[in-house]
Amino acid sequence: MIYFNGEFMEEELCRISPFERGFLFADGVYEVIRNNGKKFIEFDAHINRLKNGLESLQINFNETDKLLEICNELIEKNNLNNSESIVYIQISRGISYPRNHLFPVSNTPVTILVSISKFTPDKNFHDTGVKIILLEDTRWSRCNLKTTMLLPNVLARQKAFEQNAEEAVLVRNGLITEGTHTSFCGIKNEYLVIPPLSNFILPGITRKVVNKICDALEIPFLERNINEDELKSFDELMLLSTKMDITPVIKVGDSLINGGFPGEDTIRIQKAYLEYIYD
Amino acid sequence: MIYFNGEFMEEELCRISPFERGFLFADGVYEVIRNNGKKFIEFDAHINRLKNGLESLQINFNETDKLLEICNELIEKNNLNNSESIVYIQISRGISYPRNHLFPVSNTPVTILVSISKFTPDKNFHDTGVKIILLEDTRWSRCNLKTTMLLPNVLARQKAFEQNAEEAVLVRNGLITEGTHTSFCGIKNEYLVIPPLSNFILPGITRKVVNKICDALEIPFLERNINEDELKSFDELMLLSTKMDITPVIKVGDSLINGGFPGEDTIRIQKAYLEYIYD
Repeated sequence: MIYFNGEFMEEELCRISPFERGFLFADGVYEVIRNNGKKFIEFDAHINRLKNGLESLQINFNETDKLLEICNELIEKNNLNNSESIVYIQISRGISYPRNHLFPVSNTPVTILVSISKFTPDKNFHDTGVKIILLEDTRWSRCNLKTTMLLPNVLARQKAFEQNAEEAVLVRNGLITEGTHTSFCGIKNEYLVIPPLSNFILPGITRKVVNKICDALEIPFLERNINEDELKSFDELMLLSTKMDITPVIKVGDSLINGGFPGEDTIRIQKAYLEYIYD
Repeated sequence: MIYFNGEFMEEELCRISPFERGFLFADGVYEVIRNNGKKFIEFDAHINRLKNGLESLQINFNETDKLLEICNELIEKNNLNNSESIVYIQISRGISYPRNHLFPVSNTPVTILVSISKFTPDKNFHDTGVKIILLEDTRWSRCNLKTTMLLPNVLARQKAFEQNAEEAVLVRNGLITEGTHTSFCGIKNEYLVIPPLSNFILPGITRKVVNKICDALEIPFLERNINEDELKSFDELMLLSTKMDITPVIKVGDSLINGGFPGEDTIRIQKAYLEYIYD
């Protein structure tokens, strides 16, 4: 069962108009939110980011306070009460017929899709770490908004997959930005070093939690640019995301990081993060 | 009537899955093709560009030779035999369920949408010209592919509309690229000057025709970078596109071009272009 434009329905029955602007123009925003089997993690932070995206794009939708109830009802309807799950929320600007770039008349209803699926975190990634590759960041310059402008992410992640890597980390003008669906940071000289937020980087929810964890663990959280050539001098590297938690990076292309093992601080942060998630 | 995934159907009956990758990831390409009431204009050039886009994105679709027949049948079914019309073709990578960035298994059918609508060119634009504004080019770096990654185009065109301009022409690192849905060029010292094709610029079909027209009219067609600051020194400016033909630009923001009148060479090129279109 999914939720679509005000109704709960079977997924097969939900059909979107070919003149929906999400389909024609990537004119929408989305969120992916984790539920630990008892509660959603950082629900308000995700919804605030969604609201910020809607405002930035001038998509008129004032019913974000109803989303928690919708998500909870989807858990019930899909019998996911006792399992971990991931909810997907997408809001796009609605139908323009005939096709036209310009915003539709202001009372055009937006398109809301909320779907849920069972989720099992990949313990193997947590424990043994993953390989990443570096690729040029070809995305647009408003990556701080979580929009459906995801084709560059699709292409980069596919390329990573074809090179037996779990993620592509993107490089813009020689500087690391982030992964295709993760934040990226590392440990160097006992500092956690992470690229500063900008219009090229999504303000990650997991990143925000890790910032707090670093405070608690007394690991300085240092926001500064990371040059791609500098990566080999890092002691540890890691990926952060709603679905990957804190995943150690043990290989960048063919180069081993920390001798090919998850770093000590990475594991400390991961442990604290999982405690927070399953609290 | 539209064509969708192998069938002709009423537009209202066509409904797309919420897990279609065009909707979730902007993972598709499209074309907009003009019909003058008797024939399609540059049909093969449009289809070749579509094929190139599909290949570049590794979307497997080998039935592009059937598209002409489909388009012709849509004209019949919509009784558009004697009017000008515009056909819209979109091909996206198909359904991924559950949602996943990675390409779906290789036998996943693509999603094909072909729709048609009656078209009346805007004679007023042709005759009196339009205002444009300049905006930062926030798009990704593969604008040579005609993908549905159109949110930046939507936002820029909306901003132009709000400033009583017909088009936003985009500027990347100080250099003009193109309009949100047009090619852009000008006349300076009796040369037609146009930014060279690159990964930041769509190889426009109208541009290609204008190149030939310039040869015939003995106007040198000069491909070189145009600095945004240089625009005021141009004698004439114009927009090129399938829907706008050759539209004179008479104003950039608040600055008049050619005293606020369509330029002489612009009108010569426009006239030759319309003769070609309606030949």
